[in-house]
Amino acid sequence: MPDTVAEPPGSDPLAAAPTAPRWTGRLLVRGTGLIGTSLALAAGAAGAQVSVDDPDEERLALAVSLGAGRRLDDAAPDEVDLVVIAAPPGLVGALAASELDRPGRHVVSHVCSVQVQPQREVEAAGADVRRFLGSHPVAGREVSGPAHASAELFRDRPWILCPTDATDPNATDTMRSLARACGARPVVLDPARHDALLARLSHLPQLAASALAAALADLPADEVALAGTGLRDTTRVADSDPGLWAEIAAGNREPVAAELTAIAEVLVTVAASLRAGADEGAAAVQELLERGRAGRGLLPGKHGGPPRFRSQVQVAVPDSPGALAALLAAVAGEQVNLEDLRVEHAPGQPTGVALMAVDPGAADRLIAALRERGWTVAAGPTTAI
Amino acid sequence: MPDTVAEPPGSDPLAAAPTAPRWTGRLLVRGTGLIGTSLALAAGAAGAQVSVDDPDEERLALAVSLGAGRRLDDAAPDEVDLVVIAAPPGLVGALAASELDRPGRHVVSHVCSVQVQPQREVEAAGADVRRFLGSHPVAGREVSGPAHASAELFRDRPWILCPTDATDPNATDTMRSLARACGARPVVLDPARHDALLARLSHLPQLAASALAAALADLPADEVALAGTGLRDTTRVADSDPGLWAEIAAGNREPVAAELTAIAEVLVTVAASLRAGADEGAAAVQELLERGRAGRGLLPGKHGGPPRFRSQVQVAVPDSPGALAALLAAVAGEQVNLEDLRVEHAPGQPTGVALMAVDPGAADRLIAALRERGWTVAAGPTTAI
Repeated sequence: MPDTVAEPPGSDPLAAAPTAPRWTGRLLVRGTGLIGTSLALAAGAAGAQVSVDDPDEERLALAVSLGAGRRLDDAAPDEVDLVVIAAPPGLVGALAASELDRPGRHVVSHVCSVQVQPQREVEAAGADVRRFLGSHPVAGREVSGPAHASAELFRDRPWILCPTDATDPNATDTMRSLARACGARPVVLDPARHDALLARLSHLPQLAASALAAALADLPADEVALAGTGLRDTTRVADSDPGLWAEIAAGNREPVAAELTAIAEVLVTVAASLRAGADEGAAAVQELLERGRAGRGLLPGKHGGPPRFRSQVQVAVPDSPGALAALLAAVAGEQVNLEDLRVEHAPGQPTGVALMAVDPGAADRLIAALRERGWTVAAGPTTAI
Repeated sequence: MPDTVAEPPGSDPLAAAPTAPRWTGRLLVRGTGLIGTSLALAAGAAGAQVSVDDPDEERLALAVSLGAGRRLDDAAPDEVDLVVIAAPPGLVGALAASELDRPGRHVVSHVCSVQVQPQREVEAAGADVRRFLGSHPVAGREVSGPAHASAELFRDRPWILCPTDATDPNATDTMRSLARACGARPVVLDPARHDALLARLSHLPQLAASALAAALADLPADEVALAGTGLRDTTRVADSDPGLWAEIAAGNREPVAAELTAIAEVLVTVAASLRAGADEGAAAVQELLERGRAGRGLLPGKHGGPPRFRSQVQVAVPDSPGALAALLAAVAGEQVNLEDLRVEHAPGQPTGVALMAVDPGAADRLIAALRERGWTVAAGPTTAI
């Protein structure tokens, strides 16, 4: 690794981020997909003794080679403080019940995006529900599998805990401290409220995006080619795994059906207004858009938590190998930390634009310094992230 | 501008992009928002004599200072080869008709996202429809106004031309050559087909995204804070201008109402399947997701046109000012051109990941060279853009 310029103390707004507490218990993670492997990595980094297991040998081997933990069969501890099931929704309840029945398993939880159904399955199996609670780390990526796992996946993300009245508070505390040790922000929610909320925040948007994308499927490709770039964002999640989403939706049937019915009603009402006349239609659309902007304003910054602010500095950069390096050397020379960097250029254009996100307090100084060195620089917007 | 390393000939896949043809006519652009100013800049760069006009003096002054063209009142040419109306949808028909009635205006067009309504308004006004055709450059940004205008906005984007049977083919040719001179790909479409297609590709997704975002508005903020990051993408366009979209939807009432009704029916059908039972629900959701993936596969690459390919190279980068510059110096030393660069790091983490997009032919060589210099490098996916 090359030498780096030392950062002046206090110059990085990220430096204030609290260090996650340690968690030094014995953890068994069943399931080594993206979430399970990430959890194992994060817990291991926090000091846990981690065992992992997965019926898919290839996936398990990859997770172990990434340092997720020891194989369960190699070194099964007599006692495990916490078992976390990280399996597809349809399997979670049965696996959790069977773990609760094994000797030496203290607390059992899962990381599934639905809660009521596994809770009911555990109860129906007659397992000891005092040592059980569901949980749901709201974190993920468009990619799946252990290869994309990261100990940082949960950092600053919400981690919803769903104890019931029957859950022993000590079990909830165990899971809460693991979530904190992974850098997440634990939040307690009733299982039914979780499922109703996630139907609106996640399951409905998924199905609506898929329906929008599905409406393209019977158009000729040369007509779909006329789509603007916004449609790519709106339908991005439509690339998700159909089998996984079938399980999620089927595991949360009533709340998802209610959300689908409600949004269909909103859309049908707008359609009726448009058919009634231009003025009625315009008023209905304007109101919908205004309400949409208000709703979107409630969304958290991309890292979760309260928004932080960044200023954009836009610099023209010739499309040649050395130019960007020279620019970044100039930025480093000013002791300004780039929090994000994106280079945009239209195909065939000799000049691109480097969009650099910096601390708002450093933007003016950086702009002045770069201009002095001959760069063409514009101040971009300061936005919450 | 600092010295840059010369690029070896032929190493840049972008170098083959064809140069846009010249267009040296007299152009009047009425309306200096994002699209009008971008058109004026692009046409000026292609050799046109451009005049601009706007009832908003501040907007006009900014556009002129950016080099969009001369003010109409300063130097009104006796004759104008082409007038392009770049005004809000509700004003386009009347402005186009009035321009057609003025002496010395040869061809009149517009750049509005609806076509049938302005066409009808021009016909109803009794203007000379032989010299008129609508057009719609499928280009835009989330931001508006002349400050964000770019001569490159239309590069490689579709530009839909909507002549009618009454349109003189020479008028269509004039508009087509202007679109080409702006670097766009002109496509001819019947006005009614345009409006039906855009209802599905653009107006429906806008309203659906707004409805998804509106459903957040009556939730407590601390519950919306539990949303995953995907919802930000799905609802991104919900930040759009309510007044503009009210005009667009009201200008395309029947096709938009038909699309809203159709998607509502799809969502209600899935809801009914979910209520019918877990198996029925899972099957309906799986089918919707699969159809959505198929539809999304038809979307063009982000620059429009046939997809090009890029390979991602992932490099761990310490979060300190000099590290990224050192990495890019190393990349430049290998004579590899970065087509895109994004730096991701979780707050508070000492190490981020530089996601570098390079020509697939250069990825392996770059990875080997960087590893040799001590960087931690992983090969990311090769994807169409």
